Amino acid sequence: MMKKLINNPDDIVRESLEGMAIAHSDLIKVHLDPDFIYRADAPIKNKVAVISGGGSGHEPMHGGFVGDGMLDAACPGQVFTSPTPDQMLEAAKQVHGGVGVLNIVKNYSGDVMNFEMAAELTVSEGIPVRNILIDDDVAVKDSLYTQGRRGVGVTVLVEKICGAAAAVGYPLNQLADLCRKVNLNGRSMGMALTSCTTPAKGSPTFNLGDNEIEVGIGIHGEPGRERLPLKPADEITEMLALSIIDDPAYSRTVREWDETKGDWIELELTDPTFQTGDSVLAFVNSMGGTPVSELYIVYRKLTEICEQKGLKIVRNLVGPYITSLDMQGCSITLLKLDDELIKLWDAPVKTPALRWGR
Amino acid sequence: MMKKLINNPDDIVRESLEGMAIAHSDLIKVHLDPDFIYRADAPIKNKVAVISGGGSGHEPMHGGFVGDGMLDAACPGQVFTSPTPDQMLEAAKQVHGGVGVLNIVKNYSGDVMNFEMAAELTVSEGIPVRNILIDDDVAVKDSLYTQGRRGVGVTVLVEKICGAAAAVGYPLNQLADLCRKVNLNGRSMGMALTSCTTPAKGSPTFNLGDNEIEVGIGIHGEPGRERLPLKPADEITEMLALSIIDDPAYSRTVREWDETKGDWIELELTDPTFQTGDSVLAFVNSMGGTPVSELYIVYRKLTEICEQKGLKIVRNLVGPYITSLDMQGCSITLLKLDDELIKLWDAPVKTPALRWGR
Repeated sequence: MMKKLINNPDDIVRESLEGMAIAHSDLIKVHLDPDFIYRADAPIKNKVAVISGGGSGHEPMHGGFVGDGMLDAACPGQVFTSPTPDQMLEAAKQVHGGVGVLNIVKNYSGDVMNFEMAAELTVSEGIPVRNILIDDDVAVKDSLYTQGRRGVGVTVLVEKICGAAAAVGYPLNQLADLCRKVNLNGRSMGMALTSCTTPAKGSPTFNLGDNEIEVGIGIHGEPGRERLPLKPADEITEMLALSIIDDPAYSRTVREWDETKGDWIELELTDPTFQTGDSVLAFVNSMGGTPVSELYIVYRKLTEICEQKGLKIVRNLVGPYITSLDMQGCSITLLKLDDELIKLWDAPVKTPALRWGR
Repeated sequence: MMKKLINNPDDIVRESLEGMAIAHSDLIKVHLDPDFIYRADAPIKNKVAVISGGGSGHEPMHGGFVGDGMLDAACPGQVFTSPTPDQMLEAAKQVHGGVGVLNIVKNYSGDVMNFEMAAELTVSEGIPVRNILIDDDVAVKDSLYTQGRRGVGVTVLVEKICGAAAAVGYPLNQLADLCRKVNLNGRSMGMALTSCTTPAKGSPTFNLGDNEIEVGIGIHGEPGRERLPLKPADEITEMLALSIIDDPAYSRTVREWDETKGDWIELELTDPTFQTGDSVLAFVNSMGGTPVSELYIVYRKLTEICEQKGLKIVRNLVGPYITSLDMQGCSITLLKLDDELIKLWDAPVKTPALRWGR
């Protein structure tokens, strides 16, 4: 029997959005049918609007990141299901401040397709749009719902950094370049101690033995690199961290909307690899069911490994920010920083889930 | 087999503290043996030092609440085990700013006894001390580890409010009065969907059937009021909320240190009950394993019930703040507010787990 604090499984996204809107009415509003969360003070005139979205079940991402200094709107699908193009279109119309919209899109086939359709619809309304793809998960190439690498932890960081950049007046093209750069500079890998249980299915999404972990898991329970016997936290941390740090340069072709051509173009992009001496942001994330006390044990070991590898952790984030319902486990994200990114990371932010400096 | 991100179970408190100290070195420092977390900039001269502590396993409470505008120090015991008097004594000596120490003590027999011993030791070092008891859990009177009511969710709120009051210069006696008032003004009740698993035992602390919930659970898995079949979130929310709102006045005798007599005195204290027209802070807390999306479903229903009962929710807190390891479930706390408490709640705070306004 599924044990969750829910009513009818069909109502959980709407009821959760309604509760969130009441709890944070100073920061956000919720539009239902089509569903999107938006800044209470939107549109912000002459600021590029930053929009993201994706399946529900990863809270606080994305709705918890709507507010001053981060997202203008977030479009939640049903649990682990892509939002539809009308959500992104209506959100764009609601929050557009006159100088365009940046869509931050995690690399899942449904999200990519629907955000591309949304971009075309939005452009046809006379609103300039850029879609930038996030594909930072080093675990596997091509997965259950993905061509190429999945978009995971870097999404949180990119939403903070691009939100800050939009707030200080980056124009759309520069903001798209920044978003692409953050994605290329960041890498992630996760692991699961347990499965998650979706409300629609009501039973665990996949089966893990009592003594098994899945290393390289996706945020919907997609298979990772390997299934291993349970190990001490330090060994798990080392596996994840070294997979990220030692990963060779990764090349992929992405589609982006070209405003001047009025059509999609293809770009060939390659990551920079981590180098001794790099400054990084280290992000240790809970998959949902893992308590923060265990994340600090992972963070402790991660700092040792980064030091051995010559990486200097100059900023960090530890907590549940991109989750998989009740899954136990964690992910690690490392993001190579420069002065621009540090300044934007440190800028004030005021959202339900991330707040500092103001 | 116990699935956690830990190394040797004996090391988890120390390793977690070390990771936390590295992650938040701008805010806190950690002293080991005896263990306590303290403000990086302590002692703050001429400010009353606010200290709390208790068993580990309830993170982010208390260590996550150390910082500007909240606690000066937190003393963590082993998991679900009281800290020892030498921890509180050494913490007091480290953070004492010359005008006394307020100890915020959750009502568990071990905590009460050890904080009383600590108070006597601290007084003998020439440091004025007040211990104030938190006992807000309406579920049961006398429990596995408690005489009277257990101390739960109000602890988080009292630490924020008293931390803010200390920061603006409340002297020790006035701060103790405020702390006592917040405790009397607040009430909580929790429920569990699942048990938690302590690292020492390695298996669930108690057994709940596949279709059972425990209503009135304690934060260490202590038995609640009743075991019931699983219900929709709205019904569970209504049970918890009405238990809190309709609870009759509760009287108890508490022991407090009397500085002028140099001895313990007994005080008879009675709660005010909730009345139509009251302004309240509504706090929906995750027991650890329950995702924030479900907390918003609970919060949504809670606002309906409060409205029906004539209570005006003017502030709220939704998230995992006083947890029981990986337990799934939630608790609700309502705190009657007045202008003084609202002002102190809104004051800036900068800690690992709560941060706003600065």
